[in-house]
Amino acid sequence: MKWCRVEVGGRAIYALLEDSRLLELDGPPFAGGRSTGQRHRVEDVRFLPPVVPANFYAAGANYRFHVEWAKEYHRMSALKIPEQADVGYRSPSALIGSGADIVIPADSTGPVEYEGELVAVIGKTAKRLSEREALSCVAGYTLGNDLSERAWQISDRTLWRCKNADTFKPMGPFVVDGIDPMAQSIGVRISGRTVSEYGTSAMLFSVTHWISRMSQYVTLHPGDVLWLGCDGATIPALKPGDVVEVFNQAIGVLANRVVPGES
Amino acid sequence: MKWCRVEVGGRAIYALLEDSRLLELDGPPFAGGRSTGQRHRVEDVRFLPPVVPANFYAAGANYRFHVEWAKEYHRMSALKIPEQADVGYRSPSALIGSGADIVIPADSTGPVEYEGELVAVIGKTAKRLSEREALSCVAGYTLGNDLSERAWQISDRTLWRCKNADTFKPMGPFVVDGIDPMAQSIGVRISGRTVSEYGTSAMLFSVTHWISRMSQYVTLHPGDVLWLGCDGATIPALKPGDVVEVFNQAIGVLANRVVPGES
Repeated sequence: MKWCRVEVGGRAIYALLEDSRLLELDGPPFAGGRSTGQRHRVEDVRFLPPVVPANFYAAGANYRFHVEWAKEYHRMSALKIPEQADVGYRSPSALIGSGADIVIPADSTGPVEYEGELVAVIGKTAKRLSEREALSCVAGYTLGNDLSERAWQISDRTLWRCKNADTFKPMGPFVVDGIDPMAQSIGVRISGRTVSEYGTSAMLFSVTHWISRMSQYVTLHPGDVLWLGCDGATIPALKPGDVVEVFNQAIGVLANRVVPGES
Repeated sequence: MKWCRVEVGGRAIYALLEDSRLLELDGPPFAGGRSTGQRHRVEDVRFLPPVVPANFYAAGANYRFHVEWAKEYHRMSALKIPEQADVGYRSPSALIGSGADIVIPADSTGPVEYEGELVAVIGKTAKRLSEREALSCVAGYTLGNDLSERAWQISDRTLWRCKNADTFKPMGPFVVDGIDPMAQSIGVRISGRTVSEYGTSAMLFSVTHWISRMSQYVTLHPGDVLWLGCDGATIPALKPGDVVEVFNQAIGVLANRVVPGES
């Protein structure tokens, strides 16, 4: 199953991808959304983030090479290979869908870098799941671009504006189920040139471990998302005019153009 | 105006406090909620968090004495007096209303401490407000208890479970407008004994500064909340059986009993 949330004719709807067309649903599949019978052409819709999470979790440092690279390349001396799976947060206000513009704030000195990530979408209320049970609460997987303004990431006490400025969290385009989250290839292209490609098998902590551990302390809710971190270097930096694409064979392509903000 | 969100007869409703009774509204006041004509007795309702924020912001370190105290008392060597207003996040999944139980996870070694805070509730969409304009987007103020498991706060890479375990974010009971957020007294009682009392005039960064600065980078949305930090020491630690109350003359009393979690 492959589904999305889109705007069409001024309405935000959920839809299933079927034979290259979008079959409208009356709600998200994980909440029992059913077909309305209406079909839309993909070229007639605007993609929205597939869910608006009540709780927006991010694994952050979840790949050894990325942490080691960022520590050295960006001189982020405080970075360490994490010893346990402690999740962080992002803010829903920063979400945009595939096709929307990424706006770099006028006073950003940069660099602003991409981080292409696999995202788990929660479909069921869950508490205290074992690792064996963990994936039973997952509705499917999508893609995220955890855009990061590295100067603010170093200067600020928290990650608020470096990772959560308006438009800094592209997510989508589709949610797919039935894939193995630990056997995916995640790639990033800038204006057509592949700049990153890595396998999710290198995660420091597995998806089952993250979900099981989190659920010991916090109730997971339908629509919550867990961004799973990225591997590798995240250069070159983005500049206005670039189109940045995060891609995965099963999920599709999350594409966003970069534009300058107004001062 | 003094309003709340409560459960009554199995329904979650907004209500205005009028002559010691609750006048039911068909939506939150900041979204134009109007009277349905129905009235309820305060003793017949269960208080809910007054809003469920899409974006849950926390100032964190916003009072000099509290930072200095925590650094020394809890040996939190990484704590510093912040040089700029960099906001952090909490998770809506941890919210409970006044009257609900705070559950201390069975594997917490403690201490679990209270942090009684003033909370600004956003009522209007806002971007790029000056400090002069900042309070124009605030619907009113409520109280929050930023419960903190100090062992996890020190051991973990993030604040996820120390501050966001289920039930760790009591908020309420009422939202009031027309008060000066920089001239409030915030107190905390444990089982009837006052253990903390401080004035919001000692904030390191004012409410107008927080909101103006945040809004330069992120759009603020109706229902978002900004918890403004606490001053002073936050001892003694809470233990099962305690009733912890955060109080302010205009807003009222946010009261929650502490119970042990099941292992």
